Amino acid sequence: MHAITIPEPGGPQALVWAEVPDPVPGEGEVLVEVVASAVNRADILQRQGFYDPPPGASPYPGLECAGRVAALGPGVSGWSVGDEVCALLAGGGYAEKVAVPAGQLLPVPKGVDLTRAAALPEVVCTVWSNVFMVAHLRPGETLLVHGGSSGIGTMAIQLAKAVGAKVAVTAGTRAKLERCAELGADILVNYREQDFVEEVKSATDGAGADVILDNMGAKYLDRNVQALAVNGRLAIIGMQGGAKAELNIGALLTKRAAVSATSLRARPLEEKATIVAAVREHVWPLVDGGHVRPVVDREVPMRDAAEAHRIVEESGHIGKVLLVTSPA
Amino acid sequence: MHAITIPEPGGPQALVWAEVPDPVPGEGEVLVEVVASAVNRADILQRQGFYDPPPGASPYPGLECAGRVAALGPGVSGWSVGDEVCALLAGGGYAEKVAVPAGQLLPVPKGVDLTRAAALPEVVCTVWSNVFMVAHLRPGETLLVHGGSSGIGTMAIQLAKAVGAKVAVTAGTRAKLERCAELGADILVNYREQDFVEEVKSATDGAGADVILDNMGAKYLDRNVQALAVNGRLAIIGMQGGAKAELNIGALLTKRAAVSATSLRARPLEEKATIVAAVREHVWPLVDGGHVRPVVDREVPMRDAAEAHRIVEESGHIGKVLLVTSPA
Repeated sequence: MHAITIPEPGGPQALVWAEVPDPVPGEGEVLVEVVASAVNRADILQRQGFYDPPPGASPYPGLECAGRVAALGPGVSGWSVGDEVCALLAGGGYAEKVAVPAGQLLPVPKGVDLTRAAALPEVVCTVWSNVFMVAHLRPGETLLVHGGSSGIGTMAIQLAKAVGAKVAVTAGTRAKLERCAELGADILVNYREQDFVEEVKSATDGAGADVILDNMGAKYLDRNVQALAVNGRLAIIGMQGGAKAELNIGALLTKRAAVSATSLRARPLEEKATIVAAVREHVWPLVDGGHVRPVVDREVPMRDAAEAHRIVEESGHIGKVLLVTSPA
Repeated sequence: MHAITIPEPGGPQALVWAEVPDPVPGEGEVLVEVVASAVNRADILQRQGFYDPPPGASPYPGLECAGRVAALGPGVSGWSVGDEVCALLAGGGYAEKVAVPAGQLLPVPKGVDLTRAAALPEVVCTVWSNVFMVAHLRPGETLLVHGGSSGIGTMAIQLAKAVGAKVAVTAGTRAKLERCAELGADILVNYREQDFVEEVKSATDGAGADVILDNMGAKYLDRNVQALAVNGRLAIIGMQGGAKAELNIGALLTKRAAVSATSLRARPLEEKATIVAAVREHVWPLVDGGHVRPVVDREVPMRDAAEAHRIVEESGHIGKVLLVTSPA
């Protein structure tokens, strides 16, 4: 098969479409013929040499895919060759085939193209596990999402609205904020021109955000704590703004608030399977019903992954950038 | 009645036993004739002028008491004049009488002296709400308790052991650590001589603590994050070591860990009532059954509260220092 390999870490040109051995599904794994994958920030870090795949994972980038089941490894039940699926991966999505633990497979939801289903697994699992399973966002509460027009952001807006929460977003352009509003965001903050602490507080009668989904880490830590409501929960899923910053414990204590930080890729199989099962139970019906949709910026041929990375690094996109394999 | 007043903030001598008006129980409140109260760190901060009572609370210190119901305010049911009770207070325990919201009353557990019951409400509610309701300590997990011989510490050890957890404690003397061991602590760390990160890791095969109950705040923040296990939860309930410190978000993210900070006193009545109800349901049976006991260092006449504060500030005590009113 072909896959995007990284012979030497570096810029987008480090991604090389090359012939490699086919993966072989092990015990409890399914072989998926990939129709599409999607770009995640973690793939860029991996390309740059800053984020090695966890032990046992494929060496190729790609944390999610959609495609068809091509073979079953030993001990797999509940799936058949030919099934249309999408999957959460520890790596290897940028390839024509990938072996996936069966617990990380999901059926393609009703009304979603097989290709576009590749936009769902990573963002849905990340948002559900953080905003709902860790931070327990409840109806009537306010969620602040940084980077509201990103793949994660567009999904967080839709899921929070679907459960009856109020949603505030930050983004850097009017066009991005307008797209967030179309998806249901109630409070729009242009972070280039406005202070999100002030804007979120004034839009919530001074209360602040009950849950914040943050991808900036250090750069926003203090202001995120300021923007939290009493009993607020800050869920950090990225460190685009650095990894170390001063925490105001006094402010946290006065608010009885909490800060969590997680990543999905390094979790053990059981935890991933638990999250995928929760997603199938709680989120898939919302997608089946058309209340939550994948947001796709564009589709790029997988062999041109370098171009897709340039697009994501320039941050002009809204939602996910997909990588599609050529029809056989 | 008499109460300990604070005419001017300052050292222990700032506490003055004086004649003051009797409190009047309002809607939903119960008047308790106080038999004993207990000293908490927050009382010392209040005496020093650093911790004003929340709006509507008694101006006198004292966050817990035991005594007898003397009168019922309007709208109270389930309690009768003469009932022996203990109570979580927002203030006013250092007095001969105190008015308490009915949701913060607890019956005196079986086999516990009325006086010694004053040692229970604050520590039980603090430990239960943080270690169990927020951090969800589970059987088989490891809890690290800083200040294991304090009132909070001695209760945390007992409750964690009662649910089947392993317990590590820090303390500053051999005598304190021995008392912690008698209460069930498995891992004893003398913080004057040993590094708690190393000791907890080596006693857990490198895994670290699943939950940490911390009263030091800034001073221990970085080492607490180091000592956390994967999926670990740090619950901060005090800032004896300062209020601001650098948080290693990268370490937190790698561990998928969380930091929470709470205080009990400022919580709204509904939240206090929820905690007290949970304590009555989950902890009181353990006390009734003799599995969990109040740990009392000594009893001091309430009029000598200054002396009790000196004892607590010198940190030579183990468990709670009680303040007892004179028999009428």
